[in-house]
Amino acid sequence: MTQERIWTAALVVIGDEILSGRTQDRNVAQIATWLNVQGIRLAEVRVVSDRTEAIVEAVNTLRARNDYLFTTGGIGPTHDDITVDAIAEALGVGVVHHPEAMVVLEAYYATRGGLTEARARMARVPDGATLIENRVSGAPGIHVENIFIMAGVPHITAGMLDRLTGTLEGGRPVVSGTIGCWVAESEVADMLRSAEKAHEGVSIGSYPFFREGRTGANFVVRSPDAALVDRCLADLTTALEAEGRVVIAGGI
Amino acid sequence: MTQERIWTAALVVIGDEILSGRTQDRNVAQIATWLNVQGIRLAEVRVVSDRTEAIVEAVNTLRARNDYLFTTGGIGPTHDDITVDAIAEALGVGVVHHPEAMVVLEAYYATRGGLTEARARMARVPDGATLIENRVSGAPGIHVENIFIMAGVPHITAGMLDRLTGTLEGGRPVVSGTIGCWVAESEVADMLRSAEKAHEGVSIGSYPFFREGRTGANFVVRSPDAALVDRCLADLTTALEAEGRVVIAGGI
Repeated sequence: MTQERIWTAALVVIGDEILSGRTQDRNVAQIATWLNVQGIRLAEVRVVSDRTEAIVEAVNTLRARNDYLFTTGGIGPTHDDITVDAIAEALGVGVVHHPEAMVVLEAYYATRGGLTEARARMARVPDGATLIENRVSGAPGIHVENIFIMAGVPHITAGMLDRLTGTLEGGRPVVSGTIGCWVAESEVADMLRSAEKAHEGVSIGSYPFFREGRTGANFVVRSPDAALVDRCLADLTTALEAEGRVVIAGGI
Repeated sequence: MTQERIWTAALVVIGDEILSGRTQDRNVAQIATWLNVQGIRLAEVRVVSDRTEAIVEAVNTLRARNDYLFTTGGIGPTHDDITVDAIAEALGVGVVHHPEAMVVLEAYYATRGGLTEARARMARVPDGATLIENRVSGAPGIHVENIFIMAGVPHITAGMLDRLTGTLEGGRPVVSGTIGCWVAESEVADMLRSAEKAHEGVSIGSYPFFREGRTGANFVVRSPDAALVDRCLADLTTALEAEGRVVIAGGI
């Protein structure tokens, strides 16, 4: 069998508010979940501060070794919004006011006090970029080379992802199945290792918890091959039940 | 005035469960907030998969350019817990069973079915490491060189951070102050830029929101110099009020 091509993406989360602990990031989980549906694996994430050098380094490293690169944050109208300039610098291109974006913003702000210079900053894009429609708040996302520049506000990014759905080439989505068991993961560590080895191409994650005064764990089996996931889950269930344990399909 | 030394830390979040979108990370915000109280700035975060090469690359890059490096995840008893081995490889040292950790785990599992081989995996540390007490669930955290290896489960990491409180050298904590205003940030972008320029050493973050049908923003002023933060907030408030805006101290 030829090796199946795996499509990967990376994400750069740009923002001092995440690094200061002020804001709880929601974009990693949101983008990871969306990417998986597109058949693309989120391979790595970096959270960097609002400094040009930090953004340039992360963007240039990650765009080179992944099929796609997403960024979130730093595309608003204020002085701390430097993402577009930093990415243009990373690509070695200039920054231009995108004519379509100017039209979109003029329409959006027509009833909101007009398109000021600060607001027109949100029409700036790295030269050669196209726009990703934002139906929530006017200022568009940006697509340039293999980079997708998204908003920091999660529900705006959700809308931009929606616009991109089905437009990025990917492979088979990773399918996952979960079983749960009231068992300490340390008691079944060998069993999990054997199950992973016996089903080449799956990865098994073990996620312990302590709930209602009892120790339990969920076991998540992942692979692009749905039939393989099912077989692995069935074998794991059999092995757990052979030890007298109650297995809960779908997880606890 | 001599430049004040800024102490920095980086964080490597290890885990396919974050990259798959299954689990919402909580450790970035928790560790960022704790570090700030220690006078240490979280400079960068990487989320990497459960692969040795990915962990080694992130650990070696980040430990070299920060005072401290924290990791979360991958220190349990199962096959996907490879953090200790990967960090030992990054440091070029072997892995040993730490005698104190063996004692701790033997005591912990004495009434929980005994210390199996899988459980004893949690006593493995890079050679030369010391332990960070875990009062929640037995398996300790690990301190080696400038690296602090913490659990993936946030409340276990919380306990480990508590044990480390006050033990890491830092500088002055960054102080922040917030004001809120029912204004589109794009209308005050120039004012924010001027305020940041006029108070050297502060950074001003602008965090817009849409709530109760209205547009607003919080402006967060940060600096290790509390008096400077107060002056900047006062000047910003005066400037906003001069434009007839209502300013809400502490943010909206």
